[in-house]
Amino acid sequence: MNARSGIDGALREAIAARYRAVRALTQQLAEPLSAEDQGLQSMPDASPTKWHLAHTSWFFEALILGPLQPGYTPFDARFHFLFNSYYESLGPRQPRPQRGLISRPGCDEIRRYRAHVDAAMQCFIAGCDAAVWEGARPLVELGLNHEQQHQELILTDIKHALSMNAFDPAYLTIAPPAAGSAPALAWCDFPSGQVMIGHDGADFAFDNEGPRHAVLLSPYRLASRPVTCGEYLDFIADGGYARAGLWLSDGWAQVCEQGWQAPLYWRREGAGEWSQFTLHGRRPVATDEPVCHVSFYEAAAYAAWADARLPTEQEWEAAVAGLPVAGHWLEAAALQPRPAPAGPGLQQAFGDVWEWTRSAYDPYPGFRPLPGAAAEYNGKFMVGQLVLRGGSCASPSGHLRASYRNFFPPAARWQFSGIRLARDP
Amino acid sequence: MNARSGIDGALREAIAARYRAVRALTQQLAEPLSAEDQGLQSMPDASPTKWHLAHTSWFFEALILGPLQPGYTPFDARFHFLFNSYYESLGPRQPRPQRGLISRPGCDEIRRYRAHVDAAMQCFIAGCDAAVWEGARPLVELGLNHEQQHQELILTDIKHALSMNAFDPAYLTIAPPAAGSAPALAWCDFPSGQVMIGHDGADFAFDNEGPRHAVLLSPYRLASRPVTCGEYLDFIADGGYARAGLWLSDGWAQVCEQGWQAPLYWRREGAGEWSQFTLHGRRPVATDEPVCHVSFYEAAAYAAWADARLPTEQEWEAAVAGLPVAGHWLEAAALQPRPAPAGPGLQQAFGDVWEWTRSAYDPYPGFRPLPGAAAEYNGKFMVGQLVLRGGSCASPSGHLRASYRNFFPPAARWQFSGIRLARDP
Amino acid sequence: MNARSGIDGALREAIAARYRAVRALTQQLAEPLSAEDQGLQSMPDASPTKWHLAHTSWFFEALILGPLQPGYTPFDARFHFLFNSYYESLGPRQPRPQRGLISRPGCDEIRRYRAHVDAAMQCFIAGCDAAVWEGARPLVELGLNHEQQHQELILTDIKHALSMNAFDPAYLTIAPPAAGSAPALAWCDFPSGQVMIGHDGADFAFDNEGPRHAVLLSPYRLASRPVTCGEYLDFIADGGYARAGLWLSDGWAQVCEQGWQAPLYWRREGAGEWSQFTLHGRRPVATDEPVCHVSFYEAAAYAAWADARLPTEQEWEAAVAGLPVAGHWLEAAALQPRPAPAGPGLQQAFGDVWEWTRSAYDPYPGFRPLPGAAAEYNGKFMVGQLVLRGGSCASPSGHLRASYRNFFPPAARWQFSGIRLARDP
Amino acid sequence: MNARSGIDGALREAIAARYRAVRALTQQLAEPLSAEDQGLQSMPDASPTKWHLAHTSWFFEALILGPLQPGYTPFDARFHFLFNSYYESLGPRQPRPQRGLISRPGCDEIRRYRAHVDAAMQCFIAGCDAAVWEGARPLVELGLNHEQQHQELILTDIKHALSMNAFDPAYLTIAPPAAGSAPALAWCDFPSGQVMIGHDGADFAFDNEGPRHAVLLSPYRLASRPVTCGEYLDFIADGGYARAGLWLSDGWAQVCEQGWQAPLYWRREGAGEWSQFTLHGRRPVATDEPVCHVSFYEAAAYAAWADARLPTEQEWEAAVAGLPVAGHWLEAAALQPRPAPAGPGLQQAFGDVWEWTRSAYDPYPGFRPLPGAAAEYNGKFMVGQLVLRGGSCASPSGHLRASYRNFFPPAARWQFSGIRLARDP
Repeated sequence: MNARSGIDGALREAIAARYRAVRALTQQLAEPLSAEDQGLQSMPDASPTKWHLAHTSWFFEALILGPLQPGYTPFDARFHFLFNSYYESLGPRQPRPQRGLISRPGCDEIRRYRAHVDAAMQCFIAGCDAAVWEGARPLVELGLNHEQQHQELILTDIKHALSMNAFDPAYLTIAPPAAGSAPALAWCDFPSGQVMIGHDGADFAFDNEGPRHAVLLSPYRLASRPVTCGEYLDFIADGGYARAGLWLSDGWAQVCEQGWQAPLYWRREGAGEWSQFTLHGRRPVATDEPVCHVSFYEAAAYAAWADARLPTEQEWEAAVAGLPVAGHWLEAAALQPRPAPAGPGLQQAFGDVWEWTRSAYDPYPGFRPLPGAAAEYNGKFMVGQLVLRGGSCASPSGHLRASYRNFFPPAARWQFSGIRLARDP
Repeated sequence: MNARSGIDGALREAIAARYRAVRALTQQLAEPLSAEDQGLQSMPDASPTKWHLAHTSWFFEALILGPLQPGYTPFDARFHFLFNSYYESLGPRQPRPQRGLISRPGCDEIRRYRAHVDAAMQCFIAGCDAAVWEGARPLVELGLNHEQQHQELILTDIKHALSMNAFDPAYLTIAPPAAGSAPALAWCDFPSGQVMIGHDGADFAFDNEGPRHAVLLSPYRLASRPVTCGEYLDFIADGGYARAGLWLSDGWAQVCEQGWQAPLYWRREGAGEWSQFTLHGRRPVATDEPVCHVSFYEAAAYAAWADARLPTEQEWEAAVAGLPVAGHWLEAAALQPRPAPAGPGLQQAFGDVWEWTRSAYDPYPGFRPLPGAAAEYNGKFMVGQLVLRGGSCASPSGHLRASYRNFFPPAARWQFSGIRLARDP
Repeated sequence: MNARSGIDGALREAIAARYRAVRALTQQLAEPLSAEDQGLQSMPDASPTKWHLAHTSWFFEALILGPLQPGYTPFDARFHFLFNSYYESLGPRQPRPQRGLISRPGCDEIRRYRAHVDAAMQCFIAGCDAAVWEGARPLVELGLNHEQQHQELILTDIKHALSMNAFDPAYLTIAPPAAGSAPALAWCDFPSGQVMIGHDGADFAFDNEGPRHAVLLSPYRLASRPVTCGEYLDFIADGGYARAGLWLSDGWAQVCEQGWQAPLYWRREGAGEWSQFTLHGRRPVATDEPVCHVSFYEAAAYAAWADARLPTEQEWEAAVAGLPVAGHWLEAAALQPRPAPAGPGLQQAFGDVWEWTRSAYDPYPGFRPLPGAAAEYNGKFMVGQLVLRGGSCASPSGHLRASYRNFFPPAARWQFSGIRLARDP
Repeated sequence: MNARSGIDGALREAIAARYRAVRALTQQLAEPLSAEDQGLQSMPDASPTKWHLAHTSWFFEALILGPLQPGYTPFDARFHFLFNSYYESLGPRQPRPQRGLISRPGCDEIRRYRAHVDAAMQCFIAGCDAAVWEGARPLVELGLNHEQQHQELILTDIKHALSMNAFDPAYLTIAPPAAGSAPALAWCDFPSGQVMIGHDGADFAFDNEGPRHAVLLSPYRLASRPVTCGEYLDFIADGGYARAGLWLSDGWAQVCEQGWQAPLYWRREGAGEWSQFTLHGRRPVATDEPVCHVSFYEAAAYAAWADARLPTEQEWEAAVAGLPVAGHWLEAAALQPRPAPAGPGLQQAFGDVWEWTRSAYDPYPGFRPLPGAAAEYNGKFMVGQLVLRGGSCASPSGHLRASYRNFFPPAARWQFSGIRLARDP
């Protein structure tokens, strides 16, 4: 490892430190889980914890160390097949629904794999040529942000997997924070006009957040906070899941086929009593918490019932411009959305629950994917999905931005996805 | 029937005449088909001809005659169950995939049903009270436009059904027009700026075409004509269906699962030779005709291969503003797209083939569905579909507009759907 | 056509007459049906009436006229593809689940096809060389017995198809026979010993009925008549469909997956009231009629509930030896099983309802399929099916024998299949 | 624990010793596997190793300790739900396809569960009252034989699971025995006559092996040894998987749908070269080993190709009467079938590979299931399956008998199932 001096060295060391911190957090998320827990895949959309641990390492190997570090020896060349997620340009891979069948390599070996990649990455960051670093630095940033996305998926995927266990095992054994109370819902008004949408500046952002461009907005109102479980219970009690007229056609088909009666993880315990499975095990539904684990279809039906609609992603982004990117993140260790604080203006725009928007996940005008394998990161998913904004209680701190675009198919419910209402004035 | 005098009477008679013309054309489309042909349902998305004949009549009965014509006696009250398409607010209905099992009522009875509704509608239009007419007139317009949509579906659905017959029977026994030649593809430039999108004026439009609103466009270019079969053959020959990198992720999954190798209805006959099933039976692929029966996925992959993209629906609409709504329609009886004419500017914007846009079928800002049962006409489908523009050789003349938004899921191929390319300058 | 004289001529004319009679009955079964009815295919296991009409003609063409009649010109060579059922050795064919998509040829053309084949067959029978006739005669017999099997299928298939119509249309418009009363169930004892099983003699039998062979039986008892609807209602009322312990494991899985609560075509109309769809339309369940449209699973569960079992096919065959092959057949035009007559011994062994046996459809010792294409007639289905015995009210008169082995998968319910109980003494 | 004296005490101790030996072998089979391996479920028909470990313990708990041992405290009452396999009478249970989702309890806890049950069972065997022992002893025997069946399933299920790993991991790291050579196939003749079939005597047998009864057999011949891989390669080379005429209809459908080209676990490596996945990892197909991992359909097709047939289970049982129950069992640790030894008469009737018979798994005349929950052990599966005889290289020594009836659906291939041919003289 060559020591670098001066500003370059300090910058590299800052990135190396950030690398270590991000990687350590990932490992820490796996700690409450047994080797057997870490191998679970409970549906094709979700992946085993250990697969996430390995895949995020493979990402650094496949995009940086392999192409850019001369003489790099992969930990095990066969892992390329196992831990490639969806990069067609990087060759064939383990079928997604069979990730739960990878008993070997085991957790121990994957830990060694991570250590191998970490050591190599530290060397690489500190020592690679300036010209190489120029091209590599954005990829390191991409790799770290990628890993943060998988930190959230580790939590949502294991939540789903543990929920399949008949006995509601807890991921966290510490007690959840006491449920507080949420303020009454108010409406915040936003004016019409031309606004700029998309990422601005030199900091990291995903390719799908740009190019920054102008759009026109009509005047609109947003709810001061996300919909609570208590409000959602009113929707249920009012026959929300039985009134076709509230639903998009595809959503109604899901309600009928899947027998949806409530958000994912909810269970009716008796007259008017509901419980929900959480990362702390099963506990009563707390009426003041933001409702989460709802699909886009449920969010839209709720909005129709409430004589409102969902915001567009442009409305959302314009509304939060200027707000601090603050909220309850993964590090708060609640891993459950908490009641909104009181106060003027928009609350909980960031953290707690992702907010479904009414916007299809389309490319922005002039969008170009990244070069190379990273081209497959975002662009190829731009059809059939909806945009969510704001992050959740399972998003790592420092990962979000106002321009951040998350996306899921409209029936997805296993993310911490909630509802913020909008209205035309 | 009360005779009406003056302007009101003349207006009513004009609508009554239009009613007769539209209804007669529908009937005429069924004429080349045997009773057995008319009962075919070859996939859940398609409906039997006779179901279309009955459903369009039911529409007038359920939305106008039943609620608004005192003393109206339905032809057969049980038809309400059989011929309701998807109106949840109007009660239970025949499961969609089982429309092909309705052998009774037969074609003869459905013809009598149409006559019964037609007679009642003629009385109603001529004789209803002014106050009733005020509310009914938009519904009559809706019913006629609805019927025109089903005219196109009669053709695309029977094309699919006949294509399942091992012996390529022709719907039309007249010879197709001789294939001409298409001009070279050129690029037309359009400026940036603020443009108005959506229906304007007092003429009929569907609710999904409004409200009219301003949007900002960056400069863009559109191809002077749709992509031809010859150009598409180059894509095939260049391995288009085997190169994952050209495809959206969901599209590539379809290619792999469905084994797509070419547009729907195409068949490789030998070295470099392709045939296609048409409403005239099977015939060679004509290289100068616009390619059609491609999915959105194929359109987007072709565009990626051609170093281009698909236009947004706003770009498309702004570009055709001011063009006459002229083209090859159903009435030309070719029922097959024809080579583009030579000439400056955009060609074939209207007619011949629907053009897939890159725009998800989202509601326009401020969109409100129609009141009553008609609320279910468009709004509830606004997720998971893509917008197509311009009409096709199976769209009836007079039905299209610049603001007209058609929509289908991205994998749909049985419509006359083609490709117009766009580029950033 | 050469006239034949003497015994040979008389024998040939007898067969020709039988040919005409069988073929005419098939045609007659189609008469109550519209062209649209005749095209219906309501599930992959069932076929359209017109397909049966054509397939039975194709059988004579493919097995006799084509190979054996010099200069025979097929009516339409393409029909070979459309109307081959499952003869792999005779080439590719219309996929079974798509038989309902054959709108062309239409019913009129199929009628002409039948006439063409009939004329050729009459010539062939009367005129072919003695040496040819030697080999052909068994095939003509096979073809006629084959056609009789399809006569029954025409009825069971159209019953299923019409049952899918929301309005319970009747196939027959004549009134069904008045429901009588059934005698109390008694038990008939049969001794142990060695018995001969399988077809004996020179008359026609299917290959699966032989070779005749000896088996040993322990003493057994058979119920004097099939189980009635009334008795079956007791089973339902006693929770028969909710008690897993009564069911074979695969049967219980079907009950749970399909939601079975009663025989096919039954519907609960109110407290204790049941209706059933019949070929006369919907009518009340008549308690004294034999229960039918039950699967093997239901038959076995009922038997377990009744502290009995199903007979083996050997027990059944030994028990009916010596009984006249008499019963209610298709020609009685009831097309619905009727209450058993009073009297000593076994009643309704033949006709009314097929009787599920406990015997898997295995080959008899020394079984050899027929030579040529006819090898595929029976042998290749000898796994996964159960044997039924005795014929039904939809079997044509003269078609059955004591040794006759019908076979269906254990979940099949659309045949007129009922239950006769057995017990160990 | 009360000490028992005399014969009773000795007999009890003998059973207790056998209990310890059987239980220890099960545990030993899990030893080469990591906790992660032990959690794998690679298809609904297969179960995780640890589930087998727990289920076999649950069996003793649910059938013996719970009902018969006063004051017995279950290790964890919730395990009753998790580890009940298919006993409807014992309440609801973990859905079979979700056995791989039971990450908790982990392997360590399941080991403690086994120890808990073992200690209680040793106490119970030694100390229970004579009257209780009278009824319990057959259940202990059943439990041990049940456990032996799961020993084989542990091996076949983990073989399937490991085969899904892209890198062919070995279960056993010791080298497999060197492949020897097999003698030429000869035919052994057996006479016609009346023979007794079914279990005889006081030793343990499953209920499905009785009652013993007489059957009549025609003269028949059996192959001297099972079909070898080399012989099966000839079948493949001769187009066996492409000739519909050789196959049962359902089998041909499987060939087409599943794309079968060879036995399960085989892979074509190049011109004429084949490898197979074994519990020793991937290795070349050894031509003299018995072919295994073939379905009944493949066995029957091979037999048809070889101008032979499969034996009935009665023929098989009569032929092996008098042979010693000797062969290569699980304890030989080859875990792969080995070439037949030379010698006169039938070879390898026991061990190496299960032999598909042509007999459906029907109840014997007079069959009665065991009383109580054990009634569900065998009888409820008596439809849709075929009988296999003789045991395999994965069957534990001492478990088999001449009358032993194994059974699987005709498409099952993951057992060590092979082919012995039969012929009519």
